[in-house]
Amino acid sequence: MNIDGVLVVPKKIVGDDRGNVMHVLRSDDPNFVHFGEAYFSAIFPGVTKGWKLHTLSTSNMVVPVGEVRFVMFDPREGSSTKGQYDDVTIGESNYQMLSIPPGVAYAWRNSSDRSALVLNCATELWSAGESSHLPLETYPFTW
Amino acid sequence: MNIDGVLVVPKKIVGDDRGNVMHVLRSDDPNFVHFGEAYFSAIFPGVTKGWKLHTLSTSNMVVPVGEVRFVMFDPREGSSTKGQYDDVTIGESNYQMLSIPPGVAYAWRNSSDRSALVLNCATELWSAGESSHLPLETYPFTW
Repeated sequence: MNIDGVLVVPKKIVGDDRGNVMHVLRSDDPNFVHFGEAYFSAIFPGVTKGWKLHTLSTSNMVVPVGEVRFVMFDPREGSSTKGQYDDVTIGESNYQMLSIPPGVAYAWRNSSDRSALVLNCATELWSAGESSHLPLETYPFTW
Repeated sequence: MNIDGVLVVPKKIVGDDRGNVMHVLRSDDPNFVHFGEAYFSAIFPGVTKGWKLHTLSTSNMVVPVGEVRFVMFDPREGSSTKGQYDDVTIGESNYQMLSIPPGVAYAWRNSSDRSALVLNCATELWSAGESSHLPLETYPFTW
């Protein structure tokens, strides 16, 4: 990925005719830092969510249902990639974990015709000061 | 729940017209022990998986898609509920976390007509000796 600190990590799907097993996160993964909180965020077709910006938490996200396009913007002072955008689409057909460090803003869109599900295994607990929502116009992007 | 150590913990769904946010696990939850590994297990309609038996890991499971019936059996020597069965159906319409301690066997079935998804936030990393699969006949149950 172009933005410093953003990772896309392939995750294994173990095929099974009764239903697949899909890896998410292990405490001995090279990019595992800390477990703060896990939550799902469903996103309906056509919807864009974001920008979201964390001050402390790294977001570790997988999309086990559907496909979601994530766009990132780096507003960090002193970052070698300050001012850059990046984007990736992950989901059932490209099953990977997207890891976004604190300070990097992200927005995400479900461009498909069915609901998608995002799981975020955040490194820190949510708190009012830790997470903020910015209007989409904050960092203009042509989707 | 009837079996000693098995918990069903209500989890919050935060309604949102763009797609709900569904809580899973926080490191300050009263029943949080340790984060070992998270993985999804999809289960197709009509399928039964199990019995699964862990020697060390507590399984903390939610069902964000579909509905799944879990049946538990307590084979633990010295347990006050040894020999007992228990069961619960969790899923989108009864969104709760089912927490099953090591030593308690469980099997699960998707009785619906669509695929379901289970997320397990296990307290320990998977290893060959830690987890075993037993044939369904091991602990007879009339589904």
